Amino acid sequence: MVSTKYKNMLSGKSIIRELAEFAAVRGQEIGYENVFDYSLGNPSVPTPAKLTETMINLLKTKSSKELHGYSPSLGIPHVKEKIALSLNERFGMNYRAEHIFMTTGAAGAISHAVRCITVPGDEILTFAPFFPEYMPYVNLTGANLKVVPPNTNDFQIDFEQFEEMLTDKVMAVLINSPNNPSGAAYSSATLQKLADLLYAKQKEYGHDIFLISDEPYREIIFGNVQMPYISSFYDNTISCYSYSKSLSLPGERIGYIAVNPACTDADLIVPMCGQISRGTGHNCPPTIIQLAIAEVLDIQSDMTIYEANMNLLYNELVSLGLTCTKPDGTFYIFPKAPIEDANAFCRKAMEYDLIIVPADSFGCPGYFRMAYCIDTEKVERSLPIIRRFIKENY
Amino acid sequence: MVSTKYKNMLSGKSIIRELAEFAAVRGQEIGYENVFDYSLGNPSVPTPAKLTETMINLLKTKSSKELHGYSPSLGIPHVKEKIALSLNERFGMNYRAEHIFMTTGAAGAISHAVRCITVPGDEILTFAPFFPEYMPYVNLTGANLKVVPPNTNDFQIDFEQFEEMLTDKVMAVLINSPNNPSGAAYSSATLQKLADLLYAKQKEYGHDIFLISDEPYREIIFGNVQMPYISSFYDNTISCYSYSKSLSLPGERIGYIAVNPACTDADLIVPMCGQISRGTGHNCPPTIIQLAIAEVLDIQSDMTIYEANMNLLYNELVSLGLTCTKPDGTFYIFPKAPIEDANAFCRKAMEYDLIIVPADSFGCPGYFRMAYCIDTEKVERSLPIIRRFIKENY
Repeated sequence: MVSTKYKNMLSGKSIIRELAEFAAVRGQEIGYENVFDYSLGNPSVPTPAKLTETMINLLKTKSSKELHGYSPSLGIPHVKEKIALSLNERFGMNYRAEHIFMTTGAAGAISHAVRCITVPGDEILTFAPFFPEYMPYVNLTGANLKVVPPNTNDFQIDFEQFEEMLTDKVMAVLINSPNNPSGAAYSSATLQKLADLLYAKQKEYGHDIFLISDEPYREIIFGNVQMPYISSFYDNTISCYSYSKSLSLPGERIGYIAVNPACTDADLIVPMCGQISRGTGHNCPPTIIQLAIAEVLDIQSDMTIYEANMNLLYNELVSLGLTCTKPDGTFYIFPKAPIEDANAFCRKAMEYDLIIVPADSFGCPGYFRMAYCIDTEKVERSLPIIRRFIKENY
Repeated sequence: MVSTKYKNMLSGKSIIRELAEFAAVRGQEIGYENVFDYSLGNPSVPTPAKLTETMINLLKTKSSKELHGYSPSLGIPHVKEKIALSLNERFGMNYRAEHIFMTTGAAGAISHAVRCITVPGDEILTFAPFFPEYMPYVNLTGANLKVVPPNTNDFQIDFEQFEEMLTDKVMAVLINSPNNPSGAAYSSATLQKLADLLYAKQKEYGHDIFLISDEPYREIIFGNVQMPYISSFYDNTISCYSYSKSLSLPGERIGYIAVNPACTDADLIVPMCGQISRGTGHNCPPTIIQLAIAEVLDIQSDMTIYEANMNLLYNELVSLGLTCTKPDGTFYIFPKAPIEDANAFCRKAMEYDLIIVPADSFGCPGYFRMAYCIDTEKVERSLPIIRRFIKENY
């Protein structure tokens, strides 16, 4: 019989989907260039030319079997080796190829990490605001995701509430820094305090508590913000990475898990991910994509556009009197709506062809998210619209 | 804590792995060209030139966002549309794009199909000999795979044993035709009898029994063998396809689910697969690969080599007095070992640098599999070795 669990999920209404549909329909009516669509985190800057050239070169020079044959289920060894070396050089770690598991993006990485270190019924904590897909990512494995309420002062961690929720049942903590949707990056002070607390609680409870660190925005950092390497603070860290944002490749589904070499069972976690793959149908990311990214590990898409967009929006929103923490990175900004009901606020914005996302599903009601991975020219054109929308209504 | 379920799986010994490791080590000693490695189903014929050209053309002409941006989680609509049309033309079906779900190969397809139509504890039946990965594919979802013993006369279905095992607890039947490892394709008579029985049992038990049809070898058919389109026999069929073999692309992980339009909840199954993906980290196959295969749907790699190889091996094995059903398709042949213990037989073969796989893990002890997706020249060179191995020992 058709599974009622998945069947029932189909009836869930999503305002994000409603917004995206509106944007598409409205785009056909008035031209998509006139719809100020801040709804989706689909990178707007192109992938580096070197990646495209590398793929063409692979297609022209490699044999079919080398290029398209089965690859090892844990990832292609020399690709993993290069990733380990790159992380070691940049972040002073000591990964070996055996600590890297190639995944279909961060979604694949988190899906494996959660299965690796929990059994059904275990709790995982995350912090609001959080990427809404964390709910199915975790809960469909049988573990339970619980959400620590947001610290809206600066979107660092509310340690008082966190400690209260960090019971014996919690087997992992899932963080995302720089954060979708807030744009905040955890400071060294925050990460040190987090690590200290986790070490203490591990000792108190007599079991491991893993830190699953979801880092697709790691390289999108603004101004002089320092972005510490999270795994260096806490041994039991499984870093989940995606090239979706840094190489503007979200559709190619490529990322990895990097297991801290000092982690419990550090040498088993990657082989265990290979076993988990057999049940999820994941079976390693495409050969050609693995081979291609190995050649461009230390270059990135041009991220300066996101910072320019952020500054334009931040200045405008603040000048309009909205409460807004200045993003440290990502391509999101996360202001407080001027009324309590951010859903109503975002629906009203649609009348101005302005597509912004209310943050209820991010665990932070009353706020809204703008994804500014769009052309700067369009951001500039949107500013008077945003101004008119706010002035005429609030 | 690290999951004991997956940790324990690491200690499982695999003779296939042992064989592959031997082949690699031995290849370094005496040159891989002198190791007659019939262990792995990694296609040897190149992908069609048109696929390579299409990928290069996509890379040269499409914008980064078109080519590498997020694609819809159910698959790219025009790709699904083209696949539906191609299936309709070739097999007289009436699929629409909404019945196609793009997957990372057949593994991804089966992983979704099983979750879609079972709940933990449900039984799924398959027929020996079967692809050993079916065990984790099914059992790691929480369903239980049970294996109907082989009909070694012709590797069609043993209906007596099947009917006995087809209890009220069985929610799906998983078949693979043409079959890995036997090379047998189910005849129309077999498929009709299977459909009749499933229809009768659905009625008797008052619940759906789905047919999950795993068809990566659908296009590798020899001589005048007729390969009926399986879904046309039985409404509740979910076809799982992979381009791994027909386009020699196993490393690129591309395939699909095709839901029979007359299936129960036919219009819900694909959207449900989208929900399932959120928990498996699957999140649709790479954009560029989806776009590329859409341009080469009706061409294939040159399969004639596999048939030539099969004939060489079949004639040799039969002339040596081994019992062997002539394969209808695939690139496998499945003879009976001349001694009861096929493991010992295959270990003995290693002394002749001949790598063949005992079929215990395929549910058919006493038999062995040869994957002849290798160069015909090498098959020819292997024939005297096979002869010597058999003559000297049995």
